Amino acid sequence: MNPKAASSATTLSYEQAGVNYDLIDPLKVAAQRSAAATAGHLAAHGFSEVKASRGESAYVVDVGPFYLASIVECLGSKALVADEMRQLTGKSYYDAIAQDTIAMAVNDLITVGATPLVVQAYWAAGGSDWFGDAQRAQALVEGWKRACDTCGVAWGGGETPALAGVVEAGRIDLAASCTGLINPKERLSVGDKLAAGDAIVLLASSGIHANGLSLARKLVERLPQGYLTKLPDGQSYGEALLAPTVLYSPVTEALYKAGITPHYCANVTGHGWRKLLRHQAKLTYRIAALPEVPAVLRFIQQQANQDDREAYSTLNMGAGFALFVAAGDAQRTVEIAQSLGIAATLAGRVEAGDKQLLIEPLGIRFSDEDLQLR
Amino acid sequence: MNPKAASSATTLSYEQAGVNYDLIDPLKVAAQRSAAATAGHLAAHGFSEVKASRGESAYVVDVGPFYLASIVECLGSKALVADEMRQLTGKSYYDAIAQDTIAMAVNDLITVGATPLVVQAYWAAGGSDWFGDAQRAQALVEGWKRACDTCGVAWGGGETPALAGVVEAGRIDLAASCTGLINPKERLSVGDKLAAGDAIVLLASSGIHANGLSLARKLVERLPQGYLTKLPDGQSYGEALLAPTVLYSPVTEALYKAGITPHYCANVTGHGWRKLLRHQAKLTYRIAALPEVPAVLRFIQQQANQDDREAYSTLNMGAGFALFVAAGDAQRTVEIAQSLGIAATLAGRVEAGDKQLLIEPLGIRFSDEDLQLR
Repeated sequence: MNPKAASSATTLSYEQAGVNYDLIDPLKVAAQRSAAATAGHLAAHGFSEVKASRGESAYVVDVGPFYLASIVECLGSKALVADEMRQLTGKSYYDAIAQDTIAMAVNDLITVGATPLVVQAYWAAGGSDWFGDAQRAQALVEGWKRACDTCGVAWGGGETPALAGVVEAGRIDLAASCTGLINPKERLSVGDKLAAGDAIVLLASSGIHANGLSLARKLVERLPQGYLTKLPDGQSYGEALLAPTVLYSPVTEALYKAGITPHYCANVTGHGWRKLLRHQAKLTYRIAALPEVPAVLRFIQQQANQDDREAYSTLNMGAGFALFVAAGDAQRTVEIAQSLGIAATLAGRVEAGDKQLLIEPLGIRFSDEDLQLR
Repeated sequence: MNPKAASSATTLSYEQAGVNYDLIDPLKVAAQRSAAATAGHLAAHGFSEVKASRGESAYVVDVGPFYLASIVECLGSKALVADEMRQLTGKSYYDAIAQDTIAMAVNDLITVGATPLVVQAYWAAGGSDWFGDAQRAQALVEGWKRACDTCGVAWGGGETPALAGVVEAGRIDLAASCTGLINPKERLSVGDKLAAGDAIVLLASSGIHANGLSLARKLVERLPQGYLTKLPDGQSYGEALLAPTVLYSPVTEALYKAGITPHYCANVTGHGWRKLLRHQAKLTYRIAALPEVPAVLRFIQQQANQDDREAYSTLNMGAGFALFVAAGDAQRTVEIAQSLGIAATLAGRVEAGDKQLLIEPLGIRFSDEDLQLR
């Protein structure tokens, strides 16, 4: 199905919701080129980069006894939903927002096989006043701590600047940096192990996570009851959007302890299921079984009048993280995730063939042209 | 001299310039307590934190063969000066702004004895439009790359989100995370080596660096010619403010190669020279010789009608970084810095006695009560 053909006056795409990648991408390309040109500096310290990690979700350096992985990640605009809901319900949702922020960093870091060790907080407020709301500030601290506990990482410290004139008054720009080690080095998963025959295991999402929020917020304008609109399951739209992002590092750590090393991982964030095409190899990803779609994502799809192709190309549609494992490890991978309370689906397999993602139950095909990340 | 006694209607303090630490500090304390409580998680991975690094400028973890140091740091509001100057001169100053941002992270990371290895970029713009200004975007990329080259770090990657509604339209929130290693472990400098008899070497700043900008921007309202006001040296106020922060890691790396391990380091940022009191020990820091004060800082002091005590308690006044070294290493430390083009002053010494900083040429005394950072 062609998304253009399915368009109507009421269809709302991600680009229409306000993010113009045509403006950002030239800078990204220039930055990536310049960044790649700095790798040689590591040699002066006796180290070297893992070149295959360029373009992956985290950057990896070989420091001898193990690999060092690091990342900085942004929450995005999800805090704006919490701010609106605060007005409507009086509750602070910043404990959930804190978990979202850490999830953005940790879930990316683990894709390369790293154990996250240290998280640093970046909380840039629109003014000192932001921190004067003790309930909200306390929720942020508590949620941050709890997410660190879940991931087994040390919270190293961070920055809490008041940036009036840069960050909007009453708002906060939240980000997290994360550093980890790939230890032993055999845990490195930057793609060289991925092969035809591997199984695709999808770990359940809790909802929208922190990608697609521009679209989700835009939709509110169409809803007479806004964020308080009830979903079929009785939850309000706003509450459902604020379900915190699942932290997947307990799964990857448990897999390691069980002797399972994923051949590759993809954190399903922006670009939805197209992220399953992240790896550069010419391989076909055939999906035979779909995870359950969270009510809030089905609702967004319907309200935005998106067909399945558009929805799966933008939202996680129930799959927050993809593990590509040896076929023989697939069932145990599912069981280990489920033992940690995270639903998992043995969704499909990797095959020789064109670079494409075939979502068979929906008759959808995404090809390389649908995803240009590097 | 008492700053209150010296106050007049035209005196402008840092707090008056818009940052209210009374609102931020309770959150900081709660965050620090919660962060400290997460240290135990490292044991599950076979590692442990270097407890003395809590409250220092970077967080340090013992990972066996070496120590791992990490940090995230924010530029602050300096980019607003670049934006104003762009309007006035048509030039983009984002190459300098990029260096400032990296300096905030790298200059803090090296205080614990770390070699910076990887920098990640955090560039959160107020909308996709920000990136559409190709000249400015290119300057940011070039300056970032050059600063990485100067510091010998690999630019790992980063985030370039468009955050309309969080970051102000037309603005950008810039931060950097940095990860490094303390290798060999003897390079660790978290304070246990600092002792009476040590020499204090001050490395020159290039100007205001990236602290005190709220005050500097506030002053513009008092200047009929604003940022284009000429300083005695002929440079405009705006240009002088935008001198990029000195990157000090070439000095600390060269010291290591010369066999000199600083006993302690202090990055002189917010709180000005009070940062020389950063270490927890009961020691007296006696300053006998002062570095030259950059014209822009003298100008700010005069325009804000600050006495020396207020100025030295807020601004770097020519000292961007303090090295506490064995007395016998002091002269060589000065020479090594100067061979790298960074002026250095053998400024004074550490003595047994009350916890205090005595700036003798100015008759100023700061005590522990003047600095509460932890």
